[in-house]
Amino acid sequence: MALIVKKFGGSSVATTEKIMNIAKRVLGEKQPNDKIVLVVSAMGDTTDDLIELAQGINKNPYQYTREMDMLLTTGEQQSASLMAMAFKTLGQDAVSLTGPMAGVKTNDVYTKGRIKDIKPERVHQELDAGKVVVITGFQGANDLGDYVTLGRGGSDTSAVAIAGALKADSCEIFTDVDGVYSADPRIVPGARKMREITYHEMLEMARLGAGVMQPRSVEMGEYFGIPIHVRSTFTTDTGTFIREDYTMEDKDFVIRGVAHDEKVAKIAVLGIPNTPGIAHEIFSALADANIDVDMIVQSIRNIEKNVTDMVFTVAAGDLPQAKKVVDGVADKLSAVAVLIEEDVAKVSIVGAGMLGNPGTAARMFGALSKAGINIDIISTSEISISCLVKGSMLKEAVNAIHDEFFPKK
Amino acid sequence: MALIVKKFGGSSVATTEKIMNIAKRVLGEKQPNDKIVLVVSAMGDTTDDLIELAQGINKNPYQYTREMDMLLTTGEQQSASLMAMAFKTLGQDAVSLTGPMAGVKTNDVYTKGRIKDIKPERVHQELDAGKVVVITGFQGANDLGDYVTLGRGGSDTSAVAIAGALKADSCEIFTDVDGVYSADPRIVPGARKMREITYHEMLEMARLGAGVMQPRSVEMGEYFGIPIHVRSTFTTDTGTFIREDYTMEDKDFVIRGVAHDEKVAKIAVLGIPNTPGIAHEIFSALADANIDVDMIVQSIRNIEKNVTDMVFTVAAGDLPQAKKVVDGVADKLSAVAVLIEEDVAKVSIVGAGMLGNPGTAARMFGALSKAGINIDIISTSEISISCLVKGSMLKEAVNAIHDEFFPKK
Repeated sequence: MALIVKKFGGSSVATTEKIMNIAKRVLGEKQPNDKIVLVVSAMGDTTDDLIELAQGINKNPYQYTREMDMLLTTGEQQSASLMAMAFKTLGQDAVSLTGPMAGVKTNDVYTKGRIKDIKPERVHQELDAGKVVVITGFQGANDLGDYVTLGRGGSDTSAVAIAGALKADSCEIFTDVDGVYSADPRIVPGARKMREITYHEMLEMARLGAGVMQPRSVEMGEYFGIPIHVRSTFTTDTGTFIREDYTMEDKDFVIRGVAHDEKVAKIAVLGIPNTPGIAHEIFSALADANIDVDMIVQSIRNIEKNVTDMVFTVAAGDLPQAKKVVDGVADKLSAVAVLIEEDVAKVSIVGAGMLGNPGTAARMFGALSKAGINIDIISTSEISISCLVKGSMLKEAVNAIHDEFFPKK
Repeated sequence: MALIVKKFGGSSVATTEKIMNIAKRVLGEKQPNDKIVLVVSAMGDTTDDLIELAQGINKNPYQYTREMDMLLTTGEQQSASLMAMAFKTLGQDAVSLTGPMAGVKTNDVYTKGRIKDIKPERVHQELDAGKVVVITGFQGANDLGDYVTLGRGGSDTSAVAIAGALKADSCEIFTDVDGVYSADPRIVPGARKMREITYHEMLEMARLGAGVMQPRSVEMGEYFGIPIHVRSTFTTDTGTFIREDYTMEDKDFVIRGVAHDEKVAKIAVLGIPNTPGIAHEIFSALADANIDVDMIVQSIRNIEKNVTDMVFTVAAGDLPQAKKVVDGVADKLSAVAVLIEEDVAKVSIVGAGMLGNPGTAARMFGALSKAGINIDIISTSEISISCLVKGSMLKEAVNAIHDEFFPKK
């Protein structure tokens, strides 16, 4: 007997036919005494359709965050009730519960809520009564009892948090892909499906551009110690387990994967006085404008005049706003110039294994060099190394590094 | 300063444009210190669309009553949140509340719930904070916290019950028609809009086929003593007030209206022994099958043989089931024959005034007679008289009676 939480995303429940198929599959895989909880997203494009509807009232409906959450939570409520009907139609008793009914408590940040606590008494009652329990993903209620959504992709977080609160044996996240790969298979055809990856590595992969899982859901998995099984909606193959540490002899590889991020822009502030507080001046102005700065390098331009250059990256979407802020500070500091470069991309390697392998960075730089790719900026964390390269060279860079660490057999 | 509850049905909120127009209208009519509560139905055909969606899972989704309520309540939640956004867009703070958030407590009868109690603390708080409060009609929650809908047309009941719990000054029901008429204007072109009608008269009109208001909502109005103002979504004209008694000198008319019901079928059980318990035998069998019997007449067929005929009407939709039940009983009683007639209709006059006007029935029968219309069965209540006539003569019958009591000027 096991208690298993299974999460199905919007494309998996896009039609009533798909909903019936999922119910059939879940019942087909269910062992007699298993307790099953499903967490579902809204059907297909429902959420986008609802946002469009709201735009018929106001061009910018997200300014009304509480009302947007009232509106958007209806999508999951619909798919959850239909899924419960599907199980009942197949002869398996079932019940749908909204996030609040399932005891999901959030903070007050409408449209970007965080789960504070889960009180799953009702879920246990329904499971004990022999029902499959279908819970709406993406939502909970604040102390006032109002709906609060968890932001895009929040259904993953719901599923893992509910699995944690229920002390589930595992949490399965069903997606369009069949696991976590050593690189994006659209860029690296020979990318390998990982059998396992640690929470830390997965978080670092996500931070560096790999979009399989919402980072918050991985943090939840780590917090509750729930193994997350990322697998395909379309096949019954085993996918990738995200967990605290490896359980199998899968330590052959120094790194877990190559991540990349194209949505990056570089800003260089040239010729500013190299005095204490200069970095603070620039970056606190950006922080005040709510702009995250990623890779930073400061280099000496002219040691006699004590003049320096400050180069850093921001998310491409933040560039116009960042440029405005930086131009203001550069004026004040009498900088020589502010240069913008948009044709840049970040390529990163991630792996807890690199801690005990001092040559890892050298191998990465060597692979790029051999491929004739120039490195612009380097940054490192405990379990990752990132290089900024020309955007037009990104595909070559990812493949060169992948070939180095995951040699073709 | 007044506290006013305004209810808008599905056709009034069918598009985002219509929702904006309602918000504009409500603000245009609002006095500075008025407190406004809106009760809204689901947009246009949303409820039907959701039922159709459920039929993609199961041909008969209403067997899963709890899940149907989970599904259908999303329609009102969408329109309510959009309505709140509309007010905010116009600069008027507003908040949408689900039935449960507004404190609407129901019994456990999913899809056909009844309101048990309303605890409107949250509504008062939001009104005191200067907000327009938009509440989802048609729904509440049972003790378990599950959604329970009030059945078709339940938004009227929600509105009146909420008005009662809030001790509102009035409850306005906005509809496609601009009030309660002395007859259906589609049948009687000269039908007159009534300025006032009592709860009892309105209930009797509804029972006898006039479909303006859900009877349960009128009962609620009577229970709470809340005047219900039935008026048009499209004009600002005064409509019809439903209240305990007339307040104006509008007592010119002995009756309030002529109601009719085409969805009637007649069953005649001929030649049964006239012994005690015969009526009980027939009608308890029908009651056991959950079939309501309306007009009943028992007549002597043959006094020597002590044989009688029993004639009665049922709702047309119940006919197949009723026929089956009656055939069984008729066999047992050795009845001569069971005859069915489907081309029948009921025409009724309603008015508290007829109590003090003994000639009212005679005037009704006379009008029918003058028009050459035969009366099949007659039944009466304290404030109504009904005649069963040939279905094909219904229009003539309604007009003849209407002309008698509301003479053309």
